[in-house]
Amino acid sequence: MTKIFIQDLKDYVGQEVEVSGWIANERSSGKIAFWQIRDGSGFAQAILNMEEISASKWAEAKKVTLESSVKIIAKVSKHPKKEEYELQVEDFDFYQIAEEYPIGKKDHGIDFLLDNRHLWLRSSRQWAIQRVRNTLIQATYEFMAKNNFIKIDAPILTPSACEGTTELFAIDYFDTTAYLSQSGQLYLEAAIFAHNKVYDFGPVFRAEKSKTRRHLTEFWMMDAEMAFVDLAGNIKVQEDLIRFMVQAVLSKNQAELKILERDTKPLNNIAKPFHQITHAEAVKMLQKMGSDIKADDDLGADDETILTKKFDNPIFVTHYPAKIKAFYMKRDNKDKDLALCADLLAPEGYGEIIGGSQREDDYETILSRIKEHKLPVKEFQWYLDLRKYGSVPHGGFGFGLERIVGWVCGLEHVRETIPFPRTIYRLRP
Amino acid sequence: MTKIFIQDLKDYVGQEVEVSGWIANERSSGKIAFWQIRDGSGFAQAILNMEEISASKWAEAKKVTLESSVKIIAKVSKHPKKEEYELQVEDFDFYQIAEEYPIGKKDHGIDFLLDNRHLWLRSSRQWAIQRVRNTLIQATYEFMAKNNFIKIDAPILTPSACEGTTELFAIDYFDTTAYLSQSGQLYLEAAIFAHNKVYDFGPVFRAEKSKTRRHLTEFWMMDAEMAFVDLAGNIKVQEDLIRFMVQAVLSKNQAELKILERDTKPLNNIAKPFHQITHAEAVKMLQKMGSDIKADDDLGADDETILTKKFDNPIFVTHYPAKIKAFYMKRDNKDKDLALCADLLAPEGYGEIIGGSQREDDYETILSRIKEHKLPVKEFQWYLDLRKYGSVPHGGFGFGLERIVGWVCGLEHVRETIPFPRTIYRLRP
Repeated sequence: MTKIFIQDLKDYVGQEVEVSGWIANERSSGKIAFWQIRDGSGFAQAILNMEEISASKWAEAKKVTLESSVKIIAKVSKHPKKEEYELQVEDFDFYQIAEEYPIGKKDHGIDFLLDNRHLWLRSSRQWAIQRVRNTLIQATYEFMAKNNFIKIDAPILTPSACEGTTELFAIDYFDTTAYLSQSGQLYLEAAIFAHNKVYDFGPVFRAEKSKTRRHLTEFWMMDAEMAFVDLAGNIKVQEDLIRFMVQAVLSKNQAELKILERDTKPLNNIAKPFHQITHAEAVKMLQKMGSDIKADDDLGADDETILTKKFDNPIFVTHYPAKIKAFYMKRDNKDKDLALCADLLAPEGYGEIIGGSQREDDYETILSRIKEHKLPVKEFQWYLDLRKYGSVPHGGFGFGLERIVGWVCGLEHVRETIPFPRTIYRLRP
Repeated sequence: MTKIFIQDLKDYVGQEVEVSGWIANERSSGKIAFWQIRDGSGFAQAILNMEEISASKWAEAKKVTLESSVKIIAKVSKHPKKEEYELQVEDFDFYQIAEEYPIGKKDHGIDFLLDNRHLWLRSSRQWAIQRVRNTLIQATYEFMAKNNFIKIDAPILTPSACEGTTELFAIDYFDTTAYLSQSGQLYLEAAIFAHNKVYDFGPVFRAEKSKTRRHLTEFWMMDAEMAFVDLAGNIKVQEDLIRFMVQAVLSKNQAELKILERDTKPLNNIAKPFHQITHAEAVKMLQKMGSDIKADDDLGADDETILTKKFDNPIFVTHYPAKIKAFYMKRDNKDKDLALCADLLAPEGYGEIIGGSQREDDYETILSRIKEHKLPVKEFQWYLDLRKYGSVPHGGFGFGLERIVGWVCGLEHVRETIPFPRTIYRLRP
């Protein structure tokens, strides 16, 4: 008997196959029972005809419950009208008749669903989201390999904060204290001198007390860093990468996007050039739209939402005031108050998905910035070394995976984008 | 001017190109200077002829120091005898003349090198190791995608230990305590019910006080988990994966293996079937070789070393005594004292690189195991749910990336396999 996955049914029409999976739905009508089987690769309808299986099997079949696990021997047939394939069941065996499944058709509150995240993952909507997430991850690795980036895994256990923020998780590290990394960037900067183009992709941590739809305490970030690159070159890589990632989802996950009821028109725009505006231009636009943002303000979440609703494609906002950005960003020679940076905002109200910049490469300048930001110079000695031994112009960026998943899937809240979300009030399951 | 990477020199013979990089070595002889240029993609010799550049440039060239960063305009030529390409320099500009570089030709102690890890990464040996590591990572993603595994990122922040060990790092998590994950396995088990075949690949943490050549406190682990798989099926996937990974290194990293002086003969054996022996057989062999191991003992590091030196290819050691293995392993129906498990040991004395097993899928059995191991039943309630709602036979495995890198590169110590190693005494840089 050929064991197959549901995704391959179309190659076995007319043949007898073995499929193992779970009962995602079931109904019966007289002498016919319909089981919707889910095997992880997809969904298919299995049809049991009382007259074509033994009486004992028919009796057994009546015990079926949602989420029961089952092995089916069936003949594959094509739906007469639709591009769907069905299983005409000849025999079956339950691995287990499931107890009454707690997640049903009725509306559950979000807390109940998150408490049962280990089961909720099975629902078709959650299945689709994780499949899209997987495609975005795979596409990232594919793009980075094609473009000769070397993966350099930055450490999670660090002695101090990268950007000097206070939102750090502290750890008892033998006789001292360590902190969970918020970004691998500084370590990647060291690695460009060995490898030129490098990236990392791993979990980072922020002890954020804010409960917003965009924040998690643990999330996945991809940082890239390149030697001999300027702001325009840096932006080009980001545009190519995001285009490649979204294109991968469009080509591999149409079924998933349909389950998510995602309007794919805005995603198709990804082929067009991304917009570029300066922070000053963004502020003017926002003021016209009624925001009380001031010239030197960072874009708040609300600003990003109303701004990006105006655009049909991602927008790079460049040249933020240097004083509201991190110490390591290089200033613009034409206006020393501006940073050579760019944030990429996703359209449709989604907002920031990437932050990037040219890095300050002059020893004296970065030393004075570290002091201005009241960071402990001693902890940055190794980072300062990078400006002593063959310093070069360089830049990079970091994306937040969950925000990209949220945008591509069209989700309201980032908590559905990660398998086991962690927030201020949630550490389980 | 065409900006190119050193790895592409062979495509530009006779042409004028621009290369940016660092001075990895330099010497001069009268009117000729030789600079070994490193640009991250490779190494090339640049030749400066006093009579072919301006007097001021020649004077400038004399200031060169190790690790100075430079942009070169040069004509590409092929070495008359070797498959090497050279740069006949026409013009150059230093980005920076480096200060005296602390890492020289002389032998440095390991502590000095690790204190300067941010610079040590530039040495050709460290460069080669990270390139091999990158290939092994990329090959893993490629293999998992080809085989329809979905990446499910297991959480790092967890409320309790997966296997009930005491080697956990504790974290202040708002008003409670969290622990850093030692394995994503239990979370992956939840995800097979949605996706069938899943994996994670991320950092894990062990508060190991032992200082051995095989241990780090932070290292990268890939866990895979599959529904409807038995021990033989599980082993098959591992064999295919390891073969694919090593083959990728053999096809992409010959230059790196040469730098590492790695004898590639043992790696070429990977094409042959891996060995399989039971734990009982391994114990007998070890006793004959003089080990004092007893029938119910785990294989110690020394046992693994002497055992694997006997073999020319990886060895699966199966059916360990259940009582020395984790609570979640399924027992062998033929002998209930044995676990349906397999560890994969790398040859040449390297030892364990993968641990895997069939998982116990019966509710009552796993509940009693959790109690026997004195684990907090309450924290495992969600994990027990997986045995209530459509339980299925399943299994999986986890590999330690650093140990595989160490074996493939032929390294003595695991600390060189990761960009920024973390051990009991080391948290910096």
